[in-house]
Amino acid sequence: MILVGEALRTDLYQLTMMQAYWKSGHNPIATFDYFVRRIPYGSYLLVAGLAYILEYIKNLGFEEDDLIYLKKQGFDEGFLDYLKEFRFTGDVLAMPEGEIAFPREPIIRVTAPIMESQLVETYLLNKMNFSTLIATKASRVAYAAQGRPVAEFGLRRAQGDGHLEATRASFIGGCATTSNVLAGKLLGIPISGTMAHSFVTSFDQEIDSFRAYADCFPLNCFLLIDTYNTLEGARKAAVVGKELEARGYRLVGVRLDSGDIAELSGKVREILDKAKLDYVKIIASGDLNEFKIQDMLARGAKVDGFGVGTELVTGKPNPALDGIYKLSEIVDERGSIPKMKLSEEEFKATLPGRKTVFRVYEDDRIMKDIMALEDEKVPGNARKVPVQVVEKGEIVFDTPSLKEIRENARKNLELLPKVYRGISDTPQYPVELSLGLKNLREKVVEKIKGSIR
Amino acid sequence: MILVGEALRTDLYQLTMMQAYWKSGHNPIATFDYFVRRIPYGSYLLVAGLAYILEYIKNLGFEEDDLIYLKKQGFDEGFLDYLKEFRFTGDVLAMPEGEIAFPREPIIRVTAPIMESQLVETYLLNKMNFSTLIATKASRVAYAAQGRPVAEFGLRRAQGDGHLEATRASFIGGCATTSNVLAGKLLGIPISGTMAHSFVTSFDQEIDSFRAYADCFPLNCFLLIDTYNTLEGARKAAVVGKELEARGYRLVGVRLDSGDIAELSGKVREILDKAKLDYVKIIASGDLNEFKIQDMLARGAKVDGFGVGTELVTGKPNPALDGIYKLSEIVDERGSIPKMKLSEEEFKATLPGRKTVFRVYEDDRIMKDIMALEDEKVPGNARKVPVQVVEKGEIVFDTPSLKEIRENARKNLELLPKVYRGISDTPQYPVELSLGLKNLREKVVEKIKGSIR
Repeated sequence: MILVGEALRTDLYQLTMMQAYWKSGHNPIATFDYFVRRIPYGSYLLVAGLAYILEYIKNLGFEEDDLIYLKKQGFDEGFLDYLKEFRFTGDVLAMPEGEIAFPREPIIRVTAPIMESQLVETYLLNKMNFSTLIATKASRVAYAAQGRPVAEFGLRRAQGDGHLEATRASFIGGCATTSNVLAGKLLGIPISGTMAHSFVTSFDQEIDSFRAYADCFPLNCFLLIDTYNTLEGARKAAVVGKELEARGYRLVGVRLDSGDIAELSGKVREILDKAKLDYVKIIASGDLNEFKIQDMLARGAKVDGFGVGTELVTGKPNPALDGIYKLSEIVDERGSIPKMKLSEEEFKATLPGRKTVFRVYEDDRIMKDIMALEDEKVPGNARKVPVQVVEKGEIVFDTPSLKEIRENARKNLELLPKVYRGISDTPQYPVELSLGLKNLREKVVEKIKGSIR
Repeated sequence: MILVGEALRTDLYQLTMMQAYWKSGHNPIATFDYFVRRIPYGSYLLVAGLAYILEYIKNLGFEEDDLIYLKKQGFDEGFLDYLKEFRFTGDVLAMPEGEIAFPREPIIRVTAPIMESQLVETYLLNKMNFSTLIATKASRVAYAAQGRPVAEFGLRRAQGDGHLEATRASFIGGCATTSNVLAGKLLGIPISGTMAHSFVTSFDQEIDSFRAYADCFPLNCFLLIDTYNTLEGARKAAVVGKELEARGYRLVGVRLDSGDIAELSGKVREILDKAKLDYVKIIASGDLNEFKIQDMLARGAKVDGFGVGTELVTGKPNPALDGIYKLSEIVDERGSIPKMKLSEEEFKATLPGRKTVFRVYEDDRIMKDIMALEDEKVPGNARKVPVQVVEKGEIVFDTPSLKEIRENARKNLELLPKVYRGISDTPQYPVELSLGLKNLREKVVEKIKGSIR
C-alpha cells in the first residue's frame, strides 16, 4: 500500500489557513485529538484505519503538479516554496487497529507545528471515520451470528472506490471472507462466492444449472436454491448432492436469498437430512443486518453461515461516524496553553490538554476507562491504550498483519463484559476523567468565561 | 481517468460462474438491464456514473498478476488462458449522465456473450449505484436551496476512497463548488473554503484570527463567526470588514456553523447592514440536508449560500441505491428467449426482452415515460432516452465535460413538472408499458408458470 499524490486530498480551508499561519508567522505547536462524540450503534467503537494514516504521513509531500494547480488557485509563491519542502515532523499517538474505544476518548492525538497538524486533519477524518464505522458494524454482525461465519459481499453496493476499505474493515470486525476478488489479491482476505440467480435462469432447467456448476466445482459446490421455489430447489440440490456423492465428492452448501429464512431453512434442512446430506451447509443472505440475523437465530433458523452486503459495507443506517479533530493544546514561547471548546450542548464541549486513556481491568475483564493527562498515573490494573506511532515525523510502529489485527480485535472484544456487546439497548460504558484532567478543565473553563474576547 | 487492474474488482461468483459457463460450453448472448427498483427519496433519479463504466469496459483485461492470483485460488488453467485474451466484445446502451430515470427503467442495457455480460455486473453496480445516488441527493439539496449556491464539503465524512466520485456526482447534481482540493485538480471542479474553529481558537483573541485571515486573503475573505458567540463574532467581522474597506477591499462573507441559523442569520444581517456591509454574504453550514435547508428558508433565514457535507456525500439516510442487474434475454441457436424473474412481491418481478425507454413531451414538459421493446414506436412527441455507447466492444460515445453534464442535468430537471421535484410527498411519475412489452410479459409469465422445471 503506497499512497502518493494524496497531499491535495484535503479541504481547501486547510491550505488557506496554512497560508494565513505562514503569512502571520503564527505557527505554534498544536495538539489535536481525533475522537467520536456519539457512537452510531451499541456502546463501543472498534478502531480501524491507522494503517492508512501512517502510510499517508510517511509519504506526505506536494508534487510539482500539485503546486502548479495551487498557484493557479492564487496561492502565494513564497507559501508554495514552503510547501515544496513540506514534510510532517510531529508526533502521533494512536490506539492501534483492533482496539476498542468509547465516546470522547482520543483515538489519535497529533502534536506538530499547527501548519502540519492542521493539514492532516481531513485525510485522517476521511479514513478513520469510515474504517472505524465499518469495523464496528462488522463486529456487531459477527456477534449476532454467534460464531457462524459471515461472508461480506457488499462490493456492488459499496460507495464506489471505498470498497477496499470497507472489505478490510469488515474483516477486522470479524467477517470470515469477502466476495471482493481484488481485496483477496491486494489484502490477502479469503474470498468466497456461490452463484447468481442469472446463472440459474440462463439455463432452461434449474437442475441443468446445478449440474453445470457441480461439474465445474465438484470440490467446492454451493448451490443457490431460491430462484423459482426454495423447497423445489432444495430437492434438486439434494439430487445433485447425491450425484456428487456417487462421484466421490460432497456438496458443500446451499444458499437461501429470499423468503422467511427462519422457516424455510428448517424445511430445507429436513429435505437435505432425509437425503442423508446432513453435512451440507445452509447459508442465508438477502439484505441482512445484525438485527435480522439475531431475530432469525432466535426463531430457530437452521443456518450455518451468513452473507451480508449493503448494510455492512455502508454502515446503514448511519453511513458516517461523527468523528472530529479538535485542538486541545497550543505551545508557544509562553509555554503550554490548554484549549477547549465550550458548548451549551454538553456532548459538543471538548477536553483540554495532552491526554491519554487508561483501561482498567478486574478479573481479566474491562471494567472502565479513565481519561487522564499524559503524565498522570491511575491506581489498579490499568493499561494505556494509545501508543506512540510517529515520533518527530518518523513512523515508529509496525502495522501488524490483517489477520493479527483481526485476532487482536477478537481478543479485545472478548474482554468487554457481555452487557456492552449486545446489539441493542446497551448501557453506556463508564469513562471517567482523572482528577488532573477535571482540574485542568475547570481552570480552562474559568479562564474562557472570564476573558473578554 | 485511466483504469487498469480493475478486472478483479468483481465478486468471486462472477468468475466461478464464468468458469462454469466456459466448462459447460454454455455461452449464449445474454442481455442484462441495470435498473433501480425503488427510489430512496423523491420521485426521480439523476443518472450519473457512465463515464466510469466506459473507461472500465475500454480497459477491461486481466493482468499477469491477476491470473497468478486466480491460479492460486484453484481456477482452471484452460479458463485462465481464456481470461488472458479476454476483451469485452458486446453492445451497451445507456442513459447519458445527467438524464433523469424512474423505477424499473433500464438505465444501462448490456448485450454480450454471457461470460462477458456477467463479469461486468459488479463493477457496473458499484459505480452506477453510488454516483446516481449522490447526484440525485445533490439535486434535491440544490433544489431546496432555491438558486443559492451549495458548496459540497463532505470529504472528511465521505466513505474513504469514494470521495472523488461523491464530489463529482454532487457537482453533476447542482453543487457549485467543493472543498475537496484533489477533486479540483483532477476533475476541474471549482473549490471553495473558509476557516475552521481551530484557526480561531489557536489565536488568543477571535479578532486576531480574523485579522490574520483578512491580511492573507484580502480579496477572498470569509470569516467563521460562531466559535464563541455568533453575534459577538458578527460584530468583530464587521470591524474587520470596515478595516478591509479602508484598505480598498471587501469582506466576501461570514459563515454560521451552529445554533438556530434561521434566527441568528437575521440578527447577523442586521449587524452587517448597520455597518453598511450589506454586500457581505452569509453562508450557513452544520449537518445540513435538503429538509433543514427548506425549513430554514421557509422560516425566513437570511442566508446567501450553504455548505453541505455528510448527508450529501453519503446519501444519508439511504447510503445505497437499490440498483440491480437482471437477465432479460438469452439468444442461442434457437433464437431469442426472453427471460424474467417472477416474484410474489411485484416490485421484485423483472421485465423480459430488449427494452428501451421513450420520454413523452407536451408543451416542452415531460409528461410520462413508456417502456417499450426496442423495435416499437410510440405515438406523440417522444424521445428515446438510452443511446448506444458501446458497439461490438468499441466505445462509440464521447463523454461530455463535467460542466456540460451538469448543465444537461439542470435542463432535464427543469423539464420535469414541479410536482415531481419536491423533496417530500412527491407523487409517482407515470411510467407505462408499451403494448408489445405487455404482450411479451404475458407470454413469458405463462410459459414460466406452465413449465415444469
